[in-house]
Amino acid sequence: MDIIWYMFDMIGTIAFAVSGALVGVARKMDIFGMAVLALATAIGGGIVRDVLLGYFPPNSLRNVVYVTVVLAVTVIVFLIYNSRYRKHAMGPRSRASYLLADALGLASFTVTGASAGFKLYPELPIFIVLLGTITAVGGGIIRDMLAQRIPSVLKEDVYALPSIIGGIVYYLMVTSSWDSMAVYGAFTVVLVIRLLAIKYNWSLPKVGKTKPVAK
Amino acid sequence: MDIIWYMFDMIGTIAFAVSGALVGVARKMDIFGMAVLALATAIGGGIVRDVLLGYFPPNSLRNVVYVTVVLAVTVIVFLIYNSRYRKHAMGPRSRASYLLADALGLASFTVTGASAGFKLYPELPIFIVLLGTITAVGGGIIRDMLAQRIPSVLKEDVYALPSIIGGIVYYLMVTSSWDSMAVYGAFTVVLVIRLLAIKYNWSLPKVGKTKPVAK
Amino acid sequence: MDIIWYMFDMIGTIAFAVSGALVGVARKMDIFGMAVLALATAIGGGIVRDVLLGYFPPNSLRNVVYVTVVLAVTVIVFLIYNSRYRKHAMGPRSRASYLLADALGLASFTVTGASAGFKLYPELPIFIVLLGTITAVGGGIIRDMLAQRIPSVLKEDVYALPSIIGGIVYYLMVTSSWDSMAVYGAFTVVLVIRLLAIKYNWSLPKVGKTKPVAK
Repeated sequence: MDIIWYMFDMIGTIAFAVSGALVGVARKMDIFGMAVLALATAIGGGIVRDVLLGYFPPNSLRNVVYVTVVLAVTVIVFLIYNSRYRKHAMGPRSRASYLLADALGLASFTVTGASAGFKLYPELPIFIVLLGTITAVGGGIIRDMLAQRIPSVLKEDVYALPSIIGGIVYYLMVTSSWDSMAVYGAFTVVLVIRLLAIKYNWSLPKVGKTKPVAK
Repeated sequence: MDIIWYMFDMIGTIAFAVSGALVGVARKMDIFGMAVLALATAIGGGIVRDVLLGYFPPNSLRNVVYVTVVLAVTVIVFLIYNSRYRKHAMGPRSRASYLLADALGLASFTVTGASAGFKLYPELPIFIVLLGTITAVGGGIIRDMLAQRIPSVLKEDVYALPSIIGGIVYYLMVTSSWDSMAVYGAFTVVLVIRLLAIKYNWSLPKVGKTKPVAK
Repeated sequence: MDIIWYMFDMIGTIAFAVSGALVGVARKMDIFGMAVLALATAIGGGIVRDVLLGYFPPNSLRNVVYVTVVLAVTVIVFLIYNSRYRKHAMGPRSRASYLLADALGLASFTVTGASAGFKLYPELPIFIVLLGTITAVGGGIIRDMLAQRIPSVLKEDVYALPSIIGGIVYYLMVTSSWDSMAVYGAFTVVLVIRLLAIKYNWSLPKVGKTKPVAK
C-alpha cells in the first residue's frame, strides 16, 4: 500500500475515533469508555477488512500510530467537552459534528477497503465492492452495538448505499484510464451522497407505508 | 466443494435471507434495512465459517450469486408485504414462515459447516461438529444482535442442540460406509428435531424451576 | 506453546465459563442458554486471539478439552443453583463469585494473548499488548452483547486498563532477564489491579462531572 492509502486510512481512523468518542460523551461515559468506543469504531472496521483479506496481524494492530492517534482524539474530545467551550459544543452542533465525522469515516474506509481488495484480488469485483462497504460500515456497527444503539446501517435510510456506490465507482475507475483518480472519485461520491442524504433526509420505501397495490 | 455442497449453501442462504427480511418487516424497517438484515443473516454464518477455516476471501464475498440471491429474496418479501396479499401474510402466518425459514437455514448451514470442516480437517471431529454449529447459529446471532433481539440461540430452548446432533450425525455417517448420505442425514436430523421442538415447545430445565434436591 | 501457557489458558477458560454461566443464572436461562453463554465467554476471546494471529483452526475449536471443561463448569454451576445450597449461593455472594471469576479470566487471557503474540510476532510490541487486551476483554464483550448487557469494558471504570498494564509488564519482563517470570508477573499485575479497582470502586474522570475550566 502506498502513501495515499495510508492518508485515507488515517482520515478514516481520526473521523471514526471522533464519532466513537462523541457517542461516549452522549452516553455520559468516562474517558476510558470513550477511548474504548473510539478504538472499537476507528480500528474495528480495518480489523474486519484485514481478517476478510486474510492479512495477519491486522494493520491497525501492527502499527502504534493508530492507537496513539485514536487516544489523542479521545483526549481532545474529552477536553473540549470539559472546557468552557462545552456549552458551545453540545446540542445540535454535537450532532452535526458526529454526522460529519461519521460520513468522513464512511467515505475514507470505503476507499481503503475497496483498494485493499483490488490490490490483493483484482479479479473479484464483487469482493472489492463488498469489502469497501463492510470496512466502511463495520466500525460503526461495532460502535453502535457496544453502545446498545440501533446500528446506523439499519436505522438510517441512506447509509450503506453511498458506500456501495462508491465501491462500484472505485472499481469502474481503477480498471479504466482514470485509475490514478479512483480513490479520490470514490471518496467524493460517498461523502457527497451521504451528506446530501443527511441534509435532505432521504429515505427509502417502507413496508406498510406505501398503499397496497390496487387491483 | 461439489455441487451438492453448493445446493445446501444456497438453500441456507435463501432461507436465512427470508428470516432476516421478515425480522426487518416485523421491525417496520425500510427495504434497505431489510436487505442489510437479510445479508447479515444469510452470508454472516458463512463468513464466520470461512474465517475459522482460514479460507480467504470468504466464499460468499467472492461470488456475486450470494448477494444477488439475497437481494432478490429481500425484494420478493418486500413486495409480498406491500401487496394485496399483505393481510394474508401477516400475523401467525408470518411467524410460521419465519420459524420454518430459520429451521431450514439452521439445517443447511450445519451441513455446509460440518462438511467444509471435514474437507479441510478430517482429523478434527470436534472442530467439524463445532464448525457446523457455529455456521448454523452464527448468521442468526448477527441478525438478532443487529435487530437488538435476544438471540434465538439463547432464548429458544432447543436451537443449537439440533445443530450439534446434526454435526455428530454427519461425522458418524461420513466416516462410515454411509458417507455419501451424510449430508442428507444430517440435514434431515437437524430439520426434524428443530421443527418438532417448535411444534411441541420443547424446553430444558431452568435454574429455580426444579425443586431443590431433597436430603 | 508450552505447559504453562496451557495452564493459564485453562484457568481463563474455567473462570470465564463460570462468569458466563452465572450471567445465565441471573437471566433465569435454562441450562442450554447457560452453556451457550459459558461457551461464548470462555472460548470467544481465544477464538478472536487466534483469528488475529492468523492461526487456523482456532486452538479452542481443535481440542475437545475446552468444550468439555466449559460444559462441566456449566453443569456444576447449574447443580449448585438447583441444590439446597442455592440460597447460600445467591445474592451478594453470587455477585462476588462473578466478579472474581471475571477478574481471573481477565488476568489469564491477558497472559495467553500477550505471550501468543510474542511467540509469533516478537518484533511487534504494540500488537503483543493489544492482543493481550483484546483476548482478555473479547469473551466478556461477546457474553455481555449476547445477554444484552452494557459490556463491562464500557461500564466498569478500570477493566481494560489492568489488562493493558499487564500486557506492558509482560513485554518488559519477557524482553529482560526476568523473561521466565513474565507470565506470572503479568497475571499478578492484572489480577491485583482489577481486584483493587473492584474493592475500592476506582473510577476515571467523566465528561460533565468535573467543573468547566475557569477562565
